[in-house]
Formats: sequence, C-alpha cells, structure tokens
Amino acid sequence: MSTAALIELITREVLAELKERRGKTTAAGSSAPVTPAAKRVPVAISARHVHLAQKEIDILFGPGYQLTKRNDLYQPGEFAANEVVTLVGPKLRPLTNVRILGPVRDRTQVEISRTDAITLGIPAPVRRSGDLAGSAPITLVGPKGSVTLPEGAIIANRHIHMSPVEAEKWGLKDNDEVTVRTIKSDRPTIFGGVQVRVSPKFKLVMHIDTDDANAAGLQCNDEVEIR
Amino acid sequence: MSTAALIELITREVLAELKERRGKTTAAGSSAPVTPAAKRVPVAISARHVHLAQKEIDILFGPGYQLTKRNDLYQPGEFAANEVVTLVGPKLRPLTNVRILGPVRDRTQVEISRTDAITLGIPAPVRRSGDLAGSAPITLVGPKGSVTLPEGAIIANRHIHMSPVEAEKWGLKDNDEVTVRTIKSDRPTIFGGVQVRVSPKFKLVMHIDTDDANAAGLQCNDEVEIR
Repeated sequence: MSTAALIELITREVLAELKERRGKTTAAGSSAPVTPAAKRVPVAISARHVHLAQKEIDILFGPGYQLTKRNDLYQPGEFAANEVVTLVGPKLRPLTNVRILGPVRDRTQVEISRTDAITLGIPAPVRRSGDLAGSAPITLVGPKGSVTLPEGAIIANRHIHMSPVEAEKWGLKDNDEVTVRTIKSDRPTIFGGVQVRVSPKFKLVMHIDTDDANAAGLQCNDEVEIR
Repeated sequence: MSTAALIELITREVLAELKERRGKTTAAGSSAPVTPAAKRVPVAISARHVHLAQKEIDILFGPGYQLTKRNDLYQPGEFAANEVVTLVGPKLRPLTNVRILGPVRDRTQVEISRTDAITLGIPAPVRRSGDLAGSAPITLVGPKGSVTLPEGAIIANRHIHMSPVEAEKWGLKDNDEVTVRTIKSDRPTIFGGVQVRVSPKFKLVMHIDTDDANAAGLQCNDEVEIR
C-alpha cells in the first residue's frame, strides 16, 4: 500500500470513529469533550456450584426429593438451595459443601474453577453454560447416594447477563464476545472472550469465577468496563 | 483541533511508528512485511512457597539446621529445598507441604496466591519481593517448632526477569511496568502492572502465581507477549 493510500485509510477510519463518538455524545445530550459513555458492569463472583437434574436429585437425596430454598439469587427465579454435595475426582481429594443452585434443570451441570479442576484431577474445559458434550467426568456424593457422571463438569466461561435495554444502548446482541477491563484493581487485568447473554429476565451483571476474581483482586459488586 | 490538523497529527504519528518498525525489521536483516519483533516471554507459574531466614530455620528445623537441595530452579543459584512447612492463619485451615526455596535470605517471606490468603484468612497485599512492611501475619509450622510472624506474607506481583541484553533490545529498564497478553489461551487475558526486573544473572521468564495462571489457562513454558 502506498503512503498516500495509507494516510487516506487511516484518516477515514479515525474520522468515522470520531463521528460515531460525536453522535453518541450528542444523543446523550452532553456538550462535554468527545468521549463515549462508559459501559460499566457490576461483578458477581461464582464459587463452585452444581445445577441438578431430578434424576441425580433422586440418587443423591432420595426418590422424589425436592430442593429447599436457602436464599434468592440476583437473577429472578434462581436460588441457592440448602442442600450441598461433595465433589470427588480421580485424585480422591474431596471438595466439600458445594452449593446446589435451583431451580432443577434438564441436565446436571457442575461448575468449578480451574484451580478446583486441578485439585480434583479432571480435564474440565472452559464452556458456555449448557454446552456439556465432551466435558469432564465427575463424582457427586450426597446424603443418600453417589453418582459418577461421564460428563458434566465445566469451567464456566466469562459472561455478562444483560437486558435488551442495555444491549440496545451499547450496540450489543446475544452471544457477542466482548473484552472487559478492571477499573480499580491491585492487579489490573483485561478479560477477553467475554460472552454477552441477553434476556428480558436478566439483570446486568458480569459473572466471573474465583480464579479470575482472585487473579485481578475483584470483589462482588466491583465495577468493570466493557471496552 | 481542525480536521486538517488532526489528519496531519495522525499521519505524523503513524509514519513515525512505521519508520521505527522498518528500522527494527531492517536491523534484524529481514525483508518480510513491516512488523516489529514480538517481545515473547516464557511463563513460569509460582505455587505458594517460602523463603526462610536462618532465625526461622533455627526455630522450625532446629538450631543451626541447613536447608538441603531438592532441585535447582531456573534462575542460577536458586533452588527448591527438600524441606517443607505448614502454613496456618486465623481461619485455622492449614496449607500443608509448602515448599521452601533457597538460598537462605535475610528476612523470611511467604508468597501465596489470593486464593490461599482467603483459605488462611489473612489480608495479604500484592507486593514486590522484599517489600514486607505492613504485609500480612502468618504462622509457619515445622518439624521442630512453630513461629507466628507479625508480617511477611504477600501475594507476589506479576514480574518478568530478564537480562540487560533483552532489556536493551526491547527498550526496557529495571522496575519498568509493562502489560502482557496471552497468545494462546482458552480464556484470553491481558495482565497489567507487570514489573520488569533486570539483572545480568537473570534468565528471561515471566513469573505469575496460580491464580493468574488458572484464570488464563496458562501452563509452564507457555509464551506470552509484552505489548
């Protein structure tokens, strides 16, 4: 490419970006310097947890057993149950008191951190929720029985829940991938590959696991920013 | 700023960058497309470990005890000892078999991950090695005794060891802070606030702890890139 063509290309790109920013600023009714509105999102840290299908509830807690609610979670309809299980892998080092989240699902899904996967000794892949084909085997132990699943253990991907209102405002759609940076952190970090999940029932929050939270020094309700 | 002035500014900046890149490429004897040499660094993952002063060795292993070498580490002169200790904090949950690294130091320093700090229940700060003033209290237990230090436990900062040769080549100096990105990762991540440590005795390697490694899915000897 010639220098002249390069200058033209760069100028066009930069002017397009400036135009877009001016538009956004004007839409927001501001006459301040040209900066787009920050896309701030509060963080929730997901500790290891389990979603159970009734089939596994029957085995672990007894036939027909029903989960009991301990407390509601941030997303409407979701709750932490009083019930917990113990997880075991081939290294035979147990993870105890692992919380069950309700409501009951069609398939049992165990969400752990990579640190947990190393403790257990299982090759859990980073996956989106529900994408369990070929995920890691895991043993669950409950008060009435145990079950070893051939697959079902995953390291949850980074993701952001948002309503269509936020998605529209920020020009995002369901399953987009974004990059997110910490705002205030003793180990500043930028998270890539963050899935956007849009639903009218979702409240705005970014879900990260304990590895990401502890790497960056994030605590629940800290804000991060979509870049 | 007028559009014309902006175009001029951008063009000047871009051309300066291109000129610099061409210079670097030419210096390397390549006629390939204009790209700067990537600043690639292999990763080493530091699990929790302890550096001991003789005063604490005397308490934990007996008066005059000398550490015995298990294996050499990557940096010349550094070694992993056969000896281990148990760490305990106010939550009374022990971390067992914590490796001691030699040689003996002037001050005892305990390096843990934030995940470990939560397990122990201590407010360990992110610090550079040797910066122990006001760091967290920690109890060490050895076969001959135990000691509770009022400070000495830290979460090590991210840092890169390099020789003056690499520092010169990359335009870096001791104690610079750089940003580092993963190259191949199932959870792409950019690490900020990475300290550069330059010494003729250092071999090139980035040290990260288990939280950073497990957040990003990095394994020992994976390469990352200084941006």
